Amino acid sequence: MSQLGLLPRRAWTALLSQLLRLPCSSCIQAVRCHSQVAGAVLTSQLKAHQEKPNFIIKTPKGTRDLSPQQMVVREKILDLVVSCFKRHGAMGMDTPAFELKEMLTEKYGEGSGLMYDLKDQGGELLSLRYDLTVPFARYLAMNKVKKMKRYHVGKVWRRESPTIVQGRYREFCQCDFDIAGQFDPMIPDAECLKIMCEILNGLQLGDFLIKVNDRRIVDGMFAVCGVPESKFSTICSSIDKLDKMAWKDVRHEMVAKKGLAPEVADRIGDYVQCHGGVSLVEQMFQDPRLSQNKQALEGLGDLKLLFEYLTLFGIAEKISFDLSLARGLDYYTGVIYEAVLLHTPTQAGAEPLSVGSVAAGGRYDGLVGMFDPKGHKVPCVGLSIGVERIFNIVEQRMKTFGEKVRTTETQVLVATPHKNFLQERLKLIAELWDAGIKAEMLYKNNPKLLTQLHYCESTGIPLVVIVGEQELKEGVVKIRSVASREEVAIKRENLVAEIQKRLSES
Amino acid sequence: MSQLGLLPRRAWTALLSQLLRLPCSSCIQAVRCHSQVAGAVLTSQLKAHQEKPNFIIKTPKGTRDLSPQQMVVREKILDLVVSCFKRHGAMGMDTPAFELKEMLTEKYGEGSGLMYDLKDQGGELLSLRYDLTVPFARYLAMNKVKKMKRYHVGKVWRRESPTIVQGRYREFCQCDFDIAGQFDPMIPDAECLKIMCEILNGLQLGDFLIKVNDRRIVDGMFAVCGVPESKFSTICSSIDKLDKMAWKDVRHEMVAKKGLAPEVADRIGDYVQCHGGVSLVEQMFQDPRLSQNKQALEGLGDLKLLFEYLTLFGIAEKISFDLSLARGLDYYTGVIYEAVLLHTPTQAGAEPLSVGSVAAGGRYDGLVGMFDPKGHKVPCVGLSIGVERIFNIVEQRMKTFGEKVRTTETQVLVATPHKNFLQERLKLIAELWDAGIKAEMLYKNNPKLLTQLHYCESTGIPLVVIVGEQELKEGVVKIRSVASREEVAIKRENLVAEIQKRLSES
Repeated sequence: MSQLGLLPRRAWTALLSQLLRLPCSSCIQAVRCHSQVAGAVLTSQLKAHQEKPNFIIKTPKGTRDLSPQQMVVREKILDLVVSCFKRHGAMGMDTPAFELKEMLTEKYGEGSGLMYDLKDQGGELLSLRYDLTVPFARYLAMNKVKKMKRYHVGKVWRRESPTIVQGRYREFCQCDFDIAGQFDPMIPDAECLKIMCEILNGLQLGDFLIKVNDRRIVDGMFAVCGVPESKFSTICSSIDKLDKMAWKDVRHEMVAKKGLAPEVADRIGDYVQCHGGVSLVEQMFQDPRLSQNKQALEGLGDLKLLFEYLTLFGIAEKISFDLSLARGLDYYTGVIYEAVLLHTPTQAGAEPLSVGSVAAGGRYDGLVGMFDPKGHKVPCVGLSIGVERIFNIVEQRMKTFGEKVRTTETQVLVATPHKNFLQERLKLIAELWDAGIKAEMLYKNNPKLLTQLHYCESTGIPLVVIVGEQELKEGVVKIRSVASREEVAIKRENLVAEIQKRLSES
Repeated sequence: MSQLGLLPRRAWTALLSQLLRLPCSSCIQAVRCHSQVAGAVLTSQLKAHQEKPNFIIKTPKGTRDLSPQQMVVREKILDLVVSCFKRHGAMGMDTPAFELKEMLTEKYGEGSGLMYDLKDQGGELLSLRYDLTVPFARYLAMNKVKKMKRYHVGKVWRRESPTIVQGRYREFCQCDFDIAGQFDPMIPDAECLKIMCEILNGLQLGDFLIKVNDRRIVDGMFAVCGVPESKFSTICSSIDKLDKMAWKDVRHEMVAKKGLAPEVADRIGDYVQCHGGVSLVEQMFQDPRLSQNKQALEGLGDLKLLFEYLTLFGIAEKISFDLSLARGLDYYTGVIYEAVLLHTPTQAGAEPLSVGSVAAGGRYDGLVGMFDPKGHKVPCVGLSIGVERIFNIVEQRMKTFGEKVRTTETQVLVATPHKNFLQERLKLIAELWDAGIKAEMLYKNNPKLLTQLHYCESTGIPLVVIVGEQELKEGVVKIRSVASREEVAIKRENLVAEIQKRLSES
C-alpha cells in the first residue's frame, strides 16, 4: 500500500525545496514539531488532574513515542539499511544500553558532557551509551577480536539541548556498519563510502554529496596554520560546526572563546573554503605550507588512493574532498566523511544547498587500543546512518503526498451476520491462525455485519469469511472480497486452501 | 543451515531433562555462565594494564553483549514471536527507554525498588523502563486512545541481584502483545492464551502448561482467609514466589517477616495447593468460604467463560486453573496467567517438573485510568514472552546438538588467482552489489587463492566468482561452486543473470 520512495523525482525535489524554506524541516507545523521534540505534552491535562495538580503526562524532554504509522515507516527504512549491510557481508551484534562510565570517558571530546549518567544506587557507575562505536571497540578489545565486519542497529542517548530544527532528539536510533582489522589501505574505507551511496540511493532521498577529509590533513592544517597542539581537539570541534554556522561565527568562537590568534584563524579560513574532487587533492600536495607536513601528506596520499577506488566503484562524482570537514569526535585518526542531502534550487546555476548530515563516519585506528591493557591496536573504519533525520524526511514526504500505510497485515476478518455465532467464529478463527493465516474478529458477542465490513475497509483487510445459520446448515462458509464485494460459498473443509490460494494470487 | 526447533522430540526432551539437573540451566559450564551473568570479566587484563591498574574491561553487572551467533538465534526467535503477533492483527509501536520517574511509581508493588534511576543532571527525574506495560498505558492515556491491539519488542531494565540460575539479567528483552478496549468478557483474554500456545508450540520448546488464576480470586481468597486488606499486596508478592520457593519458606516469609497470623497463612496454604481444569472452577464455586466473596465469584464466573472459549480454540488441555498463581505486579485486576515449560521425567507416572515461567500476563483494567486526569479507564489484557529464557534454552540446545548457524548471508566471494587484480575485483564486486547480490572480497591487494577459497568454506559462502588474466583476455569470469568445486566460465556480461539464476535454484 505504501509507495515509500517511489515518488516521481520532480515532485520529490519540489517538496524538499519547499521543506527547506520552512524554519522547521522535520514537520509541517512548527508548533507540532516543537511539542514533539520537547517531549509531547498534553497541556490540557495540567488543569484537569484533580488529585495530582502538577501531574503532566508526557515523555521525557527530547524523546518521543513512535506510533504504529511511524513504526511502519521506520521498519521499511531499517529493512533497507540492514539489507544493504548484509549485502556487504556484515554480521549483527548487540551491546547493553549502558556501559561502565569509565569505558566512555575520554572518547568523545566535547561530547562527553552530554552523556546520560545513571544514578549511583550502590554498585557500578554507569552511563547510557553515547554512540555504537565505542561499545564496539570495547567489545573487540574485551573479546580479543582482531577482525570483524559487523552492523548494529540500536538506540543511543545524548543530553543535547533539543533544537527544533532538523529533528534532533535526545534518544535516537543509529545504524552502524564497521570493518575492524588490519587490511590494505583504503579498501574497507572505499566500501564504507559505497555503502553510504547505496543506502542513500535506495531511500531515494534526492541528490546527495559525501564530503571527505582526513583527520591527519585537519591536524596538519592546524599545525601549519600555527594552532598550538593543546588546542587541536577544541578547534576541531569548532570547525565541525561549519555546516551549521557561518565562518565568521566559527572564527569568533575560535578567537574570542578559545583564545586562538586571529591570524591563525584566518589562515585556517583560507583552507576550509576549499572543496573539490581528486584535483584538489593534487593541488594540496603542491600547497607550500601543507606539503611540509608529514601527517598531511599521509592523509593526502590515502585520499588519492581512495579516489581511485571510488572511481572503480562508480561513485567518485558523489564525493567531494572538503577541507572544512572535521568531525567532532575525538577518536577519528584517518579518513572522515559525512553525507549531506542537496537541494537543487529552481534557478539554474545557483549553488546547491546543504540539508545537514544524514550519514557519517571515518577511520579510528586507536580506539580499540585504548581498551587493551597492552595497547594492541585494531584498525577500524565505519559509518553511521542518521536514520532519525531520514525518518522525518520520509514521513514528511508521505504526509505531503497523502501516502497511506497499513499498520496491520491482517488478511481475513471472521464475521457473522447473526446473533449467537460467537462460538462458530472462535472455532473458525482458530483454524485460520493454526494454518498461519493472519486473521481478526471483533471482540463482541454480537457485532453488526455492517460494523464488521466497515472495520475491514478502514483497516485494509482484503477478505471476509462469513459464517451464519444458512452456511452452518449447508456446511459452507462465504468468502467475501472487500474490494469487489463479491461473495462465494466454499465448503467448510476447503476454506483454508481457498484462502491461501487467493492470498498467493493477490 | 540452522535447524532451529527442528530436533526430534525425544532428543529435545532428553536434553531438557539433563539441563534441569544442572545448577545452571543457561550454560554448559557453570563458570562461564557466572561470568556472563555478572558481566563478562576479563580478569587477565586486571594485572596487565599498566597505566590504569584498576581498569577492567567488562560489561555492567547483569548485562551482556550478544555475539553474531547469538544475534542469529535471537532474530529467529523474535521473528517467530512477531509474526505470531502480526497474525493476530497487532500493530507495532515504540516508547522511550526511560520515562519520567513519577510515571512509573506506584505501579509495580515491591518491584519499584528495582528501578534504574538516571542521575539528576539538571532537569527531569527519569527512570529506565521496568516493563513495556506501564509505558503502553501511559501512551494510551496521553494520546486518549480507547482501543488498540499492539505489540512491542524492546529492552527493559531491573536491578535484580543477578541469580546464576535461569539466566536472569538486569537488561533483558521483552515481547509484549496487548489488547486495549472495552469488549465483551474473556474474548481478548482467550486470544492472549491462544497466542501463548501458538508461540510456545512454534518454538518447539517441548511440553508446556499455562497456569491461570484471577486477581479477584486471589484477593477473595485473602479476604476469606483473614488477611488484612493493607497486607494484600505484600502477601500477593510472597505467594508469587511459590514457583521458586517451597510453601514452608513462603509461609515463613508471610508469618515471620510480614506479620501474618499463622492460622491465616495455613488457610491460604490449603487453597494454593489446588490446581486443575474447569472442574476445579466448579468446585470453587461450591467452596463454603470462597463462595461468600463477591469478588471471587466474579473471577470464577469469568474463568468459567474463559475455559469455554479455550475449548473452542482447542487449547483447554494446556491450561491449568492454579490458585497458587498470584503474579507479583500491582496492576493486575482480573485474569492472570503464566506459562511454564514441563519436564517429563524418565520414570513414568512421576509428577511433571516446572522449569520456570517463559511467558506471562493478565488483565489490568485500572492502569490507564491511573494516568488519566479524570480517571477514565481503558480495560487492557496482554502477555509478555520471556524471550531471554527462551534464547538460553534454544542456544543451549544448539550447542548440545552441535547445530551451526551462519552469521552472514554472503552469496558470492569475488576472488582472483593473480597479483595486481584488485582493480578488476573492485569493478566486479560493485556490479554485484548494485544488482542486489550479497558479495564480499578480501581486503588485500594480493590475496592468495587458497586463502580466498578457505574464507568461503569457513563462512559458508556458496559461490566464488574468479577473475584472472586469462578470463580478462577472453571477456569471461569463472563461477565456482564451493561445495562441488565445479568451475564454469561465463561471459562477463551474463554474470549477474547467471548468479541470480543459481541463487534462485538453491
